[in-house]
Amino acid sequence: MDNFQFCTPTKVHFGKGSLDKLHDEVVAIGKKVLLVYGGQSIKRSGLYDQVKAKLSDCEVFDLAGVEPNPRVTSVRAGAKICKEQGIDVVLAVGGGSVLDCSKAICAAACYDGDAWEQVLDWNKVTKALPLVTVLTLAATGSEFDAAAVISNLDTDEKLALIHPLLYPRVSILDPELTYSVPANQTAAGSADMMSHIFEQYFASSTNLISDGICETVLRTVIACAPRAIANPDDYDARAQLMWASSLACNGICSLGNGVMPWPCHAMEHELSAYYDITHGVGLAILTPHLMRFSLNEKTVERYCHYGKAVFDLLEEDDRMAMANKAIAKTEEFFAKIGLPKSLSELGLEISDERIADMAKHALEHNQAFHLCMEPMTLEDIKQVFKNAI
Amino acid sequence: MDNFQFCTPTKVHFGKGSLDKLHDEVVAIGKKVLLVYGGQSIKRSGLYDQVKAKLSDCEVFDLAGVEPNPRVTSVRAGAKICKEQGIDVVLAVGGGSVLDCSKAICAAACYDGDAWEQVLDWNKVTKALPLVTVLTLAATGSEFDAAAVISNLDTDEKLALIHPLLYPRVSILDPELTYSVPANQTAAGSADMMSHIFEQYFASSTNLISDGICETVLRTVIACAPRAIANPDDYDARAQLMWASSLACNGICSLGNGVMPWPCHAMEHELSAYYDITHGVGLAILTPHLMRFSLNEKTVERYCHYGKAVFDLLEEDDRMAMANKAIAKTEEFFAKIGLPKSLSELGLEISDERIADMAKHALEHNQAFHLCMEPMTLEDIKQVFKNAI
Repeated sequence: MDNFQFCTPTKVHFGKGSLDKLHDEVVAIGKKVLLVYGGQSIKRSGLYDQVKAKLSDCEVFDLAGVEPNPRVTSVRAGAKICKEQGIDVVLAVGGGSVLDCSKAICAAACYDGDAWEQVLDWNKVTKALPLVTVLTLAATGSEFDAAAVISNLDTDEKLALIHPLLYPRVSILDPELTYSVPANQTAAGSADMMSHIFEQYFASSTNLISDGICETVLRTVIACAPRAIANPDDYDARAQLMWASSLACNGICSLGNGVMPWPCHAMEHELSAYYDITHGVGLAILTPHLMRFSLNEKTVERYCHYGKAVFDLLEEDDRMAMANKAIAKTEEFFAKIGLPKSLSELGLEISDERIADMAKHALEHNQAFHLCMEPMTLEDIKQVFKNAI
Repeated sequence: MDNFQFCTPTKVHFGKGSLDKLHDEVVAIGKKVLLVYGGQSIKRSGLYDQVKAKLSDCEVFDLAGVEPNPRVTSVRAGAKICKEQGIDVVLAVGGGSVLDCSKAICAAACYDGDAWEQVLDWNKVTKALPLVTVLTLAATGSEFDAAAVISNLDTDEKLALIHPLLYPRVSILDPELTYSVPANQTAAGSADMMSHIFEQYFASSTNLISDGICETVLRTVIACAPRAIANPDDYDARAQLMWASSLACNGICSLGNGVMPWPCHAMEHELSAYYDITHGVGLAILTPHLMRFSLNEKTVERYCHYGKAVFDLLEEDDRMAMANKAIAKTEEFFAKIGLPKSLSELGLEISDERIADMAKHALEHNQAFHLCMEPMTLEDIKQVFKNAI
């Protein structure tokens, strides 16, 4: 078991009706609120009006229109309002993109330079406004971690900003708020959660506790995502998916696992940066190809263990065959919940030149590819992109 | 999945050499330190001198001699020093008893009345000194929760004090500090962790995530306790036991599980209060009897599920037989790590009158016996005590 440091100071209110906690949690911090959200969905669903009604004794400023891969331009706009209006607390109402954007706003609001500088250099975060979140999509786990992923279209970059000051102060998780999430987004969110686990589970070192928690989250998503897709109002399925999403990216699933290079996310961020595709979709497409790339004599037992623990595969003498079955099961599950198997299914035509660019950038932005369970070179990254076409 | 609220603000430094974090964490809070510890073991092991050396620029006051079932008299003594000396931070170095005592000191130091009043009425905790812990025994999970259990010999009471202000600010968990824990204490600590899980796992409602995490912790303890007992310097076994102990009582294993009445702890606290026996030993003795009491047609599937998930039992048509095997496996495991099977093995002679007293007090102190998976009456509690003799 490797050494670790762990602290998640976020207070979670989980369950039906937990939006009732919003007012007291917000005003305990302050009454000048920046309300951050995405498109029209929270207005259509009535959630926007509910939130406004609950904060009727607060002064609420709106930042609407946060994009699915949130842009640094939105961060700048939010930080500007915070500075001009003396905002006390940022309230994010939405999915991972809204939450990520809000985290970057919390940091940029307390910084004199440009927001993108903080993404490029996390040490430039020294103070942040407190953040309260109301989650409407189970996927990224942003509600229970200290990370944000921000896109810069000027530079074709999509990069992480991670800092302990960016844990939400409070996260309100009401599974009923995800009833309106359509099937394709439920599926993409589920793939995102699973990918978070894969990045931690196929690591250089593991232990009984991290294995068991990772496998639990994977089995939960595999059991509940099809139920939530078939019956969007299945409270129990929505609830378990929601809590699975929060655990999956928080770090608690893999404490003691040592170096985790997160290759799939690094590669997917390139796809999203260039093609603005849905993050979870890109992850689902890349995952089986990454798994097949890293399967070899050295790693075969890990894949067999995974297949047995997560898909109840029976032990086989032919270890490579069993490992390949585990990977095929993963691919089948993504297909079962309606996710595409290839980039060409998305209508993307990706040139060799673009693949070379993406692989180069992935390697620049993530210095840990050589520490993967099976180390990855520039050529390996290119090959996995190609296999995913 | 039931609604829940969750927040663990404790920062954990886990692993070899994590004592090196002590100085900076303490002085970040303040330089007037109350050092709380138990007997001579931290002096023999050299840990006391190490801690003192690391805090050479602090003003350190000692409170030594905290008892295995910590007394309110020790709490009063610690609170008195805090008040007289204007202590900034309490530093607990030891196992669960030292940590529990220290939590109660943190609360009592900020309270004008007597410390026992706060145990009897948790609302009387409104402020607490910050607590830093250095753990030397993997067992109670006190390093990562907000609970303390305090004994009052004047009233033969052993009661919990639980308050969010009592989470340690920082907990330093170095598995190497548990190498010197003898076999019997390692076994008792392991039984304590398992009992914490049982109290949450055999609950009125469960879900896939809580089941998986609970089963993971149980399997980890079952795998690692015998290794740590056979080879006290087995770092990996000590590390996994240590982190298992922290998770087991934190609440994160059972989020969404609804009402958890903790009957075994309520009953064991009576045994400890009257006979001052080791907590984990009492729990191990009571557990199989409580399980057998609650096994019936309504609960049989839960025990079968447990047996399959934790002990890899094969499915059987005779469900009651399978459930009984699961309970027998539990009993065998406790015996395997050297724990006694009955109260008489401890040399205790327990009269019917004393059993009646203990059952009455257990029911008075824990109002939730009727909410157990199989509800328990006064007569049921008496019967389980009798069966454990």
